[in-house]
Amino acid sequence: MGEPNVRVDAAVLQQFTADVLVGFGLSRDEAAITAEVLIASDIRGIDSHGVPRLGYYAERLRKGLINLTPNFRVITETPATIAFDADNGMGHPAAYRAMRRCIEKARETGLCMATVRHSNHFGIAGYYAMMALEEGLCGVAMTNATPLVIPTFAREPYLSTAPIAVAIPAGRERPIVVDLATSTVAWGKIEIARREEKPIPWGWALDAEGNITTDPFAAVALTPLGATRELGSHKGYALALVVEVLCGQLAGAAWSRYVAGSRTVPPRPANIGHAFMAWRIDAFRPEEEFLAEIDQMLAELRAAEPVEGQPRVYVPGDPEDLAEADRRANGIPVHPKVLAELRALGDEVGVPAPF
Amino acid sequence: MGEPNVRVDAAVLQQFTADVLVGFGLSRDEAAITAEVLIASDIRGIDSHGVPRLGYYAERLRKGLINLTPNFRVITETPATIAFDADNGMGHPAAYRAMRRCIEKARETGLCMATVRHSNHFGIAGYYAMMALEEGLCGVAMTNATPLVIPTFAREPYLSTAPIAVAIPAGRERPIVVDLATSTVAWGKIEIARREEKPIPWGWALDAEGNITTDPFAAVALTPLGATRELGSHKGYALALVVEVLCGQLAGAAWSRYVAGSRTVPPRPANIGHAFMAWRIDAFRPEEEFLAEIDQMLAELRAAEPVEGQPRVYVPGDPEDLAEADRRANGIPVHPKVLAELRALGDEVGVPAPF
Repeated sequence: MGEPNVRVDAAVLQQFTADVLVGFGLSRDEAAITAEVLIASDIRGIDSHGVPRLGYYAERLRKGLINLTPNFRVITETPATIAFDADNGMGHPAAYRAMRRCIEKARETGLCMATVRHSNHFGIAGYYAMMALEEGLCGVAMTNATPLVIPTFAREPYLSTAPIAVAIPAGRERPIVVDLATSTVAWGKIEIARREEKPIPWGWALDAEGNITTDPFAAVALTPLGATRELGSHKGYALALVVEVLCGQLAGAAWSRYVAGSRTVPPRPANIGHAFMAWRIDAFRPEEEFLAEIDQMLAELRAAEPVEGQPRVYVPGDPEDLAEADRRANGIPVHPKVLAELRALGDEVGVPAPF
Repeated sequence: MGEPNVRVDAAVLQQFTADVLVGFGLSRDEAAITAEVLIASDIRGIDSHGVPRLGYYAERLRKGLINLTPNFRVITETPATIAFDADNGMGHPAAYRAMRRCIEKARETGLCMATVRHSNHFGIAGYYAMMALEEGLCGVAMTNATPLVIPTFAREPYLSTAPIAVAIPAGRERPIVVDLATSTVAWGKIEIARREEKPIPWGWALDAEGNITTDPFAAVALTPLGATRELGSHKGYALALVVEVLCGQLAGAAWSRYVAGSRTVPPRPANIGHAFMAWRIDAFRPEEEFLAEIDQMLAELRAAEPVEGQPRVYVPGDPEDLAEADRRANGIPVHPKVLAELRALGDEVGVPAPF
C-alpha cells in the first residue's frame, strides 16, 4: 500500500492505452476498441479488468501469441444464430464485433445468439451486455478463460471463473446490469490479499489438496459460487459448466482446462470462446408495459428496508453506477505501481505517458 | 420419521395421480401431462416437487383458483420468439406445450425463446429443459414463484427461488442436466429440518429481522446462492433477478413479490410466469464435433480425482440419474404420511388408491 492512488482523467488514460496498443502492433481500430473496453472497466470500478491488465495483453502481443491482422469471419449463420472465428485476434474487438452483429440480427429476428472461437481475453463481460441497452434490447455476454475453479469434490481446477453478464433496460430507473463470475470471488481478490499479506475469508479459495484455505499464499484455485457443497457449490459449478459449454464446445473454442494462459508452457494462443445473446422486448410484449413494470420493481428494490448496519439495498449494477459517477467526475484512481508499469510500457514503444 | 418409506411402482403412482387430477376436474389430457411431470420428479429423486405436492395442487383446484378449461394461446410471435398466455390453467401442461412449440421453432429457426404468463406452479424446471434432449437440442427452462428469497442486505423476501434448468446433449456420455434454485437451498430443506426438529446449517435461511438463523422454526426466508455478501450472495440475488425479469416482466406475468401462494389472503390466481429456450447445435457447428468434445469433457470430469473423503466428482444430473436407476427398478419411496394424504385425496374424488 503506502503511496495513495493517483487520479487520471479517463479520456487521457484511454488515448494513452490505445497509443500503446498501436505501438505493440495493433491496428488503430483494434487498439481503439480494446482501450475503450479497458477504460470502461476502470470507469465502472472493476479495476481488476482495466488498465492494470495492459501489461498482460502487452506480454501476449510481445510474444507473438495474438494475431495482429486477424481475419475475423463468420463460420455459419441462421436467422437467429451466428458463429464467428476471431482468428486469434484481440478478444475485445472480436467480442465487440460479434455483439454488434448479434444486436443487429436480434433487431431483425427478435432474438439472436452469437458465438466466437479462437479468441482471447475480452475484459469485462458487462461491457458487451450493456451494448444492447443502447438499442433498447436485453443483452447477455459470457466467456470462458484459463482454469481456476474447482468442481465440487474435485482437487484440481477444470473450469474458468465463467463470467455471465446480463443487461436489462429500464424506463426512468437505471437499468439492471448483472456482471458476475460464477466463482465465489475473482482471482484478483486473492492477489490483493497477497499484496496486503492478509488472510482471506473462509470459503473463497482452495489449497493444493482441494481443501478450503484462508492463507492467500496457499490458495491455488477458487471455489464455485456457494463455496461448499452444503452451501450450494454444486450450483456455482453447474452454472460455470453451462457457460463453459456455450463458450467452449458450442463455440468451437477450447474448454477452460485447455485454454492457454500466461503460465502455459510452451506458450500458445489462448483459444478462448465467447457467447452472446440479444433480444427485443417487443418480441414478447409492448415495450412500454415492460419498462413501466421494470421501473416499479427496481423502485421497490431500491427503496427496500435494509438489515441493520447496511445503508440500503442495491440493484445489480448500482455499485458500478456509483463508481462511474465518481470516476467520470474525478478521474480514475490508479495505483502508483500500475502507473509506473504503464509508463514503462509507453517507453518500450515510444509513447510518452501524459501522467 | 419412525415408519419407513413404502416403495410404489412409478406407473401405478402416475396413473393414480392422473385419475385424482381428473377427479378434481382436469381434462384427461391436462391431468396426464401433470402426472407425468410430477412422477418424473419423484423418479429423479426430487421428492419436494413430486407427488407430495399433489395436495397443494388439489387445494388450488378445490378453491377454484385454477382454470379447468384454459384457453392456452399465443400472444405474439416472431421467427425466433413466442409468447403464450396460459389463461390460469395448470402450470405443467402450459409449460409442456410452450416448450414443445419452442423446440419446434428452434428446429426451424436455429434458436427460440418462449414465455408464458398467467400460469401456475409447473413442478421441476428440469423436465422441460430435458424435453430438448429428445430432439438433440439444448434446452433451458425457468420460472418465478412466490417470494421466499431476500435480496442481499434486505429484510424481506422479494424474489422467488428462481430455478433455472439447462439440458445439454452428449454423445456416448450421459447428458448434462442442470436444475437448480438460485437460492442456497430450496424451502423443502427447511421443512425437513422442522419435521426432524434439527438445526439447519449456517447460511441457508434468514429470520424475521433478515439475519442468518440456524433455527428452522425462526426461518422465514431463504438466502440467495452465496449466503452472505462476503461469500457472494449478491451474485445469487442477481441471478434470481434475471430469472425474475424473463418470467415476470418479459413474459407479462406478476413478479414474484406479487405472485399469489397458498397463504395469500384473499386467495387469487398465482399469475406465475415461465421462460424457455432451445437451440440447435448445428446452428453453430457440426453436431458430431460438439458431441465428441462434450463427451471428452464429461469423461474427464467424471474421472477427476476427488478430495479426500469423497467417492467421486459428479456432473450436474448424475445424482438424479443414480436416483432414477434405483427408482425405475425398485419403485418410488413414499413417506407413509404422504401415502395417507394421497389415499385421502383419492377418497375425496372417488379414486381408490392401489397402494
